[in-house]
Amino acid sequence: MAKLVTLGEILIQFNAMSPGPLRHVNYFEKHVAGSEANYCVAFVRQGNECGIISRVGNDEFGYNAIEWLRGKGVDVSKVRIDDSAPTGIFFVQRHYPVPYKSDSVYYRKGSAGSRLSPEDVDEKYVKGADLVHSSGITIAISDTAKEAVYKAFDLAKSRSFDTNIRLKLWSPDKARHEIMKLLNQFHLNFLITDTDDSKIVLGESDPDKAARVLQNYADIVVMKMGSKGAILYYEGKKYYSHGYTVPVEDVVGAGDALGGTFLSLYFRGFTLERALDYGVVAGTLNVMIRGDQENLPSIEDIQRFLREFS
Amino acid sequence: MAKLVTLGEILIQFNAMSPGPLRHVNYFEKHVAGSEANYCVAFVRQGNECGIISRVGNDEFGYNAIEWLRGKGVDVSKVRIDDSAPTGIFFVQRHYPVPYKSDSVYYRKGSAGSRLSPEDVDEKYVKGADLVHSSGITIAISDTAKEAVYKAFDLAKSRSFDTNIRLKLWSPDKARHEIMKLLNQFHLNFLITDTDDSKIVLGESDPDKAARVLQNYADIVVMKMGSKGAILYYEGKKYYSHGYTVPVEDVVGAGDALGGTFLSLYFRGFTLERALDYGVVAGTLNVMIRGDQENLPSIEDIQRFLREFS
Amino acid sequence: MAKLVTLGEILIQFNAMSPGPLRHVNYFEKHVAGSEANYCVAFVRQGNECGIISRVGNDEFGYNAIEWLRGKGVDVSKVRIDDSAPTGIFFVQRHYPVPYKSDSVYYRKGSAGSRLSPEDVDEKYVKGADLVHSSGITIAISDTAKEAVYKAFDLAKSRSFDTNIRLKLWSPDKARHEIMKLLNQFHLNFLITDTDDSKIVLGESDPDKAARVLQNYADIVVMKMGSKGAILYYEGKKYYSHGYTVPVEDVVGAGDALGGTFLSLYFRGFTLERALDYGVVAGTLNVMIRGDQENLPSIEDIQRFLREFS
Amino acid sequence: MAKLVTLGEILIQFNAMSPGPLRHVNYFEKHVAGSEANYCVAFVRQGNECGIISRVGNDEFGYNAIEWLRGKGVDVSKVRIDDSAPTGIFFVQRHYPVPYKSDSVYYRKGSAGSRLSPEDVDEKYVKGADLVHSSGITIAISDTAKEAVYKAFDLAKSRSFDTNIRLKLWSPDKARHEIMKLLNQFHLNFLITDTDDSKIVLGESDPDKAARVLQNYADIVVMKMGSKGAILYYEGKKYYSHGYTVPVEDVVGAGDALGGTFLSLYFRGFTLERALDYGVVAGTLNVMIRGDQENLPSIEDIQRFLREFS
Amino acid sequence: MAKLVTLGEILIQFNAMSPGPLRHVNYFEKHVAGSEANYCVAFVRQGNECGIISRVGNDEFGYNAIEWLRGKGVDVSKVRIDDSAPTGIFFVQRHYPVPYKSDSVYYRKGSAGSRLSPEDVDEKYVKGADLVHSSGITIAISDTAKEAVYKAFDLAKSRSFDTNIRLKLWSPDKARHEIMKLLNQFHLNFLITDTDDSKIVLGESDPDKAARVLQNYADIVVMKMGSKGAILYYEGKKYYSHGYTVPVEDVVGAGDALGGTFLSLYFRGFTLERALDYGVVAGTLNVMIRGDQENLPSIEDIQRFLREFS
Amino acid sequence: MAKLVTLGEILIQFNAMSPGPLRHVNYFEKHVAGSEANYCVAFVRQGNECGIISRVGNDEFGYNAIEWLRGKGVDVSKVRIDDSAPTGIFFVQRHYPVPYKSDSVYYRKGSAGSRLSPEDVDEKYVKGADLVHSSGITIAISDTAKEAVYKAFDLAKSRSFDTNIRLKLWSPDKARHEIMKLLNQFHLNFLITDTDDSKIVLGESDPDKAARVLQNYADIVVMKMGSKGAILYYEGKKYYSHGYTVPVEDVVGAGDALGGTFLSLYFRGFTLERALDYGVVAGTLNVMIRGDQENLPSIEDIQRFLREFS
Repeated sequence: MAKLVTLGEILIQFNAMSPGPLRHVNYFEKHVAGSEANYCVAFVRQGNECGIISRVGNDEFGYNAIEWLRGKGVDVSKVRIDDSAPTGIFFVQRHYPVPYKSDSVYYRKGSAGSRLSPEDVDEKYVKGADLVHSSGITIAISDTAKEAVYKAFDLAKSRSFDTNIRLKLWSPDKARHEIMKLLNQFHLNFLITDTDDSKIVLGESDPDKAARVLQNYADIVVMKMGSKGAILYYEGKKYYSHGYTVPVEDVVGAGDALGGTFLSLYFRGFTLERALDYGVVAGTLNVMIRGDQENLPSIEDIQRFLREFS
Repeated sequence: MAKLVTLGEILIQFNAMSPGPLRHVNYFEKHVAGSEANYCVAFVRQGNECGIISRVGNDEFGYNAIEWLRGKGVDVSKVRIDDSAPTGIFFVQRHYPVPYKSDSVYYRKGSAGSRLSPEDVDEKYVKGADLVHSSGITIAISDTAKEAVYKAFDLAKSRSFDTNIRLKLWSPDKARHEIMKLLNQFHLNFLITDTDDSKIVLGESDPDKAARVLQNYADIVVMKMGSKGAILYYEGKKYYSHGYTVPVEDVVGAGDALGGTFLSLYFRGFTLERALDYGVVAGTLNVMIRGDQENLPSIEDIQRFLREFS
Repeated sequence: MAKLVTLGEILIQFNAMSPGPLRHVNYFEKHVAGSEANYCVAFVRQGNECGIISRVGNDEFGYNAIEWLRGKGVDVSKVRIDDSAPTGIFFVQRHYPVPYKSDSVYYRKGSAGSRLSPEDVDEKYVKGADLVHSSGITIAISDTAKEAVYKAFDLAKSRSFDTNIRLKLWSPDKARHEIMKLLNQFHLNFLITDTDDSKIVLGESDPDKAARVLQNYADIVVMKMGSKGAILYYEGKKYYSHGYTVPVEDVVGAGDALGGTFLSLYFRGFTLERALDYGVVAGTLNVMIRGDQENLPSIEDIQRFLREFS
Repeated sequence: MAKLVTLGEILIQFNAMSPGPLRHVNYFEKHVAGSEANYCVAFVRQGNECGIISRVGNDEFGYNAIEWLRGKGVDVSKVRIDDSAPTGIFFVQRHYPVPYKSDSVYYRKGSAGSRLSPEDVDEKYVKGADLVHSSGITIAISDTAKEAVYKAFDLAKSRSFDTNIRLKLWSPDKARHEIMKLLNQFHLNFLITDTDDSKIVLGESDPDKAARVLQNYADIVVMKMGSKGAILYYEGKKYYSHGYTVPVEDVVGAGDALGGTFLSLYFRGFTLERALDYGVVAGTLNVMIRGDQENLPSIEDIQRFLREFS
Repeated sequence: MAKLVTLGEILIQFNAMSPGPLRHVNYFEKHVAGSEANYCVAFVRQGNECGIISRVGNDEFGYNAIEWLRGKGVDVSKVRIDDSAPTGIFFVQRHYPVPYKSDSVYYRKGSAGSRLSPEDVDEKYVKGADLVHSSGITIAISDTAKEAVYKAFDLAKSRSFDTNIRLKLWSPDKARHEIMKLLNQFHLNFLITDTDDSKIVLGESDPDKAARVLQNYADIVVMKMGSKGAILYYEGKKYYSHGYTVPVEDVVGAGDALGGTFLSLYFRGFTLERALDYGVVAGTLNVMIRGDQENLPSIEDIQRFLREFS
Repeated sequence: MAKLVTLGEILIQFNAMSPGPLRHVNYFEKHVAGSEANYCVAFVRQGNECGIISRVGNDEFGYNAIEWLRGKGVDVSKVRIDDSAPTGIFFVQRHYPVPYKSDSVYYRKGSAGSRLSPEDVDEKYVKGADLVHSSGITIAISDTAKEAVYKAFDLAKSRSFDTNIRLKLWSPDKARHEIMKLLNQFHLNFLITDTDDSKIVLGESDPDKAARVLQNYADIVVMKMGSKGAILYYEGKKYYSHGYTVPVEDVVGAGDALGGTFLSLYFRGFTLERALDYGVVAGTLNVMIRGDQENLPSIEDIQRFLREFS
């Protein structure tokens, strides 16, 4: 059983009960979310251990996050209750104005999660992990959060990073600058990204061309392609795992489901190719519901999907 | 900024919360609807002004209609509160017995809206409008409502008409007779129709053949084709704007979204072709939700749809 | 086992999911209702038989009504499908503007139910009944419906009448005139009323004084007092059955629950006093839910209520 | 008008309000279900008569089942209230882990329905039926239920059987053994099955090959193919009725809708081919909703589907 | 018809669909709120005019607020769209841990509404008002908002102030200091407060004693007493208007309903006493629903309440 | 920090979304429940540790139970996944036929939880606990479960027992016999009961008289009185803690909330009297919601209740 440690903000998600512009949505459904929390739950769901280094507010939403993740088997001993700021939240607008896409409206500025800082990074805890994971979101939310990632990556046995660029958090220029800086400083074991992000970071949206560059910075590159699946690049090889067409409720979190499942199964001893195939199934199931963590499948579920879905 | 005036009944819609025959639907969702009200909201959403000449009952549903439309920016100063009759309502049965289609069950006989009459048509108000719009529904609901349309069209600078034949309101023969009579009396600037209606009016369901005839009565003819898009005919030209495949919740009101958006953008200075393309997007988004006016997109929303939806 | 026949309109009720003015109620819950239908279901629930003479439209709501009542054990063989008019409906506004009271908004003018007529009154069917019941609503909705009641009362072995004055259907003067006319023409076995109605009919809201007059027209008079219970007058005796304080969701239908349960248990051989006590419990339970027929209790349920509720 | 008698368990279904694993489903919607009950309702919906021989518990869910089926026009006089066991229930998990498929979680072991026994089979009642129908579920739930089927098939004028193998109720071996035993004992008029079941029973999943064998046991064989439609085999003929692509909410009950509609229309005098075409439409509409009986279409509904759906 | 101008933040409220701690509330209902917006809607509901000076974000929630208030008849011409900050929001936790009380969880720090500033105060607009109203919330949310109130009060013909102390926005000391400073600077025509607030401001929770002091600063003092009603003090007189016991859903906004209705009716020519009686009814109805503005009654509604509620 | 170990069945509860007989309830809400699980969560909520010895099925509901309880901080390491039986479930019917009371409909016969057996009782685990708790439910569900309680009580440092008689699980005679047998075998530190149960066990419903007898078997006796509060008896003393009147949603679980909170606070060092007062508040809050564990208050919440509720 491998152990992952992630760093990032745990958010409470308020997902629109009906599609369309939020002004006309009357009801919202609450979920626990946040990219690194999603990765953690996927990691545990596949039979490994995972802890998250994070902060939440001393409020109902913060306790909500902790209880949920603990229930899911995530180690929450490093989630700090921060009395001075509220738990970050966001709203999800679905299928509008672009069908099959979701928009996020954040209320996370100055949140407890954005106050994540190097002091939260317990040296022993991080060194004990087989893999340390974070994302572009964490280095975007605040300078202290970014520094926490740098500290953890410094201490890490191996590193995984999901570019996860959110243009509501920083400009394309800032995103490119910060991500390249991180890539230049740390060699990654895993780099998970997509063509939108590689266009911003490298000015290159062709997956093969982008991957060629990114492989200079990471041993294994995963290029997510939405409903088209994903591509894996490593040791000069390329493996394409096709996607599936299913009814889409909300795509938020699908990439994390793919990434977390892929990593976890790799650490369970799966080949990279098979781990990716399974990750794509996890991402596929994820888009069928509201919420990011409720549809994460077990290995048996994925196998049944592969056997019966056509 | 152009000003549109429409004449027609504002209805309260009770949309089935689940698909299937109404006898087994337990919950209904309330919306403000009515074809001409839909046109008005679309007109305002695209940056023009619009007022509606109508009547509602002196009841909660009537005030509901007025408050909603006023909130949307529609001029409701010409909506008369009629103490002697209730606000018209209807129920929407969805996806049964024909998937992707909706049926309407009206309770509008003798309604306040059907009591619309020439005395409600303020001469100055109508003359001040850049365009006067009504539909086959209004001339079907009562003789006085029909006379109101005739009076307004007499006074109008320019005229738009949507055939909108509802066979629960009149017979095909009556519909043909009344629509042809109107077309013979008033030259239209805009005629918006579809192949079902042209089959009834002209006995012709081929769009090109039907349009050839209809262009004798109108400068610009728009032939709506449901999920297949729409065709524009004017000055001997033909322009086809393709449709989109999206998840269908309720198709009621999609044609109004298309028509109202098209007209409004034309008055904003768009070419007819581009206005139609945008109108088709508005109609497309409209079928994804219950309710007729909640998903009407702004120009920016449409542009994002066109950029990102594939 | 006794057999009751009632005459009256079966309605579909759309009950507001939240209290307050209907303009701000977004969701409505569908139920089968109508005073005489409520009486029927209560009659059957207590172990007797009941049939209703009525009309519904040839529409989903009409079939809804028939299927529901048949399921409840009501004989619907005399419910005629009328192709020429829709099933009557109404909306219920709850707790506004008067807490604990409900308002009805009818869409029943010209409905199928209002087209009930003497031709619907099967002579043999009515003569076979132990009791024929109708109400002030039925004689208010149309002349033909009133004539149907007269015809049925003419043929009846015994008669029950609930004044049930609805001021949205007729004026106080008209109500008084018509009810007195009926009372003068037919001696009733059971007259069920309340102080609001006796004030309109007799100008007398004191229950004892009103009952003194009404006993000239009926053997047994039941005066409903809302949450305060009910009073029974017969053969010079008076019996007061106290009410109960419970959470109120919707009071519509409570009087019918009381009346129907009372009558049915009397025909099961209960004393009038005990039948009334049980009827008051039925009325009490009825106000705790939306819908008029779903909370009608069995004898065992009532006994448990009486044993355990304090 | 033909009369069908079915034997089987009536169940209460709790259908997940949202897709995904049941641990994360918070709300469940109640329906009346059970394969033979579904057949009954379909039979009645197409204008024939149907009675069900069954048992339910002396509890709210049992009365729920009886009232619903009686409302639908099913003869429930042979549904026995069994004081010694509860009404059987099940939960439906939708779209997980396989999109477009549903899983059932039963709480029916030792249920009232499983206590169905030969003593419940009224000889005269069964002999009066034009067709007696049951399924693999009934012979799987208990020995006494199986014996009841044998007794009824012994008495029956003609017989219909739906293999309906539920691997949560018995092993493939047991299913094969019992179904073959039944087929060997009784010649069937109608055998309704699918390729999954024929694979278990005959080791053959090719529809034509399986049907070739099954025709030794039944005059008419219907092979259900899910969204691909169904194939009919009789007198050496084969007829393929294509399926339809529609939005899938829950597939449970679709096969019963197809089978019941097919049988009923055949008894109404339709050709087998046309009856199958209509049955496929009934099955198609059934997958669009939660619940098994609410979307069963009338003949007119099916005709409108065939005319307008493309 | 009088004209009121208010200054304050318009908020979007997410009200818990079920009582209890927010961590276990899964669904939230969206409403438009904010104390001064509530006052405005109450003012308009009673037949006067009202405009609000405020800011909202350039986001769906901001447009939601504007459309809703415009629909209600509020003049929103002075609501500025602020591109640099989001619309303020809050969550309502109900009945926990104190039954019948509600807690607010704000996400309004740095919101558009808190950026209200003196430059938003149009001199002519404010001078044209018969009354300018604001509250302790507005002077608490930011220095610029406070300055806007001072500027408006400087220009105002007459002034109304509701202490509305929110201890999540400032400390008791700060609240006392700021409110006393404002009272010392401007003589008020109306001061609306309650005993909790007077305890903080004056250290005095006895209403009579507190009012004695407060009358030095305001002509008319209204002391709200929750479900016990309210007391009016002016020209040495005292008038107690008793409260009512009704089912409580959410008390948030009840004080605004009382205050706004009271002021509006006073400007309609009611005596202060009768205006207060009516205001208490408005506050009473308000606690029966979620949302602050949906249950604001018309004069006729209040009169019916007073006539029929006992 | 004290450690409690409980033995009992964890159940999934399906709570009726609306009051009334279950046949008319369409929607059900899922919760994790079971008396000993409720005790555990209350114990943890007050700052102690708690583990539960139990079994659940290898199914979604079983994992649901484990994840929820782990989230709440309960040690689930001794909850065994039993492949051979399903997780026990029950339905809650509310406010019918007795207002303010709830009825449970169990589907727990042969459930995984009822298969709890002495082999599940880890000697070291039980000996390590400061208190071992179980209830009349556990000794009623199966012989092996009863034996598990006996084994654990044998090993226990101190013992707590809640009579919790469920007449759907055993007869009064059997309940009396088994409870007296247990009381005779083990001296209890805490005995928690109510007057209904003492009537069954001792034939005595007067709390003082019953307590006099029960004190022979237990050091501390708590007599629960529903909305009237509770009485504590120990060392010849009696202490009455009064109840509170609040809106009742569902009373199921209130006694567990009281008992678990009382015990936990006693172990936190509170006096018995103050622990009981706080326990009564916990029970009071519990009746305001559906679900048994969601409204369990923290010490701070209880203190705020006591300070502000009147």
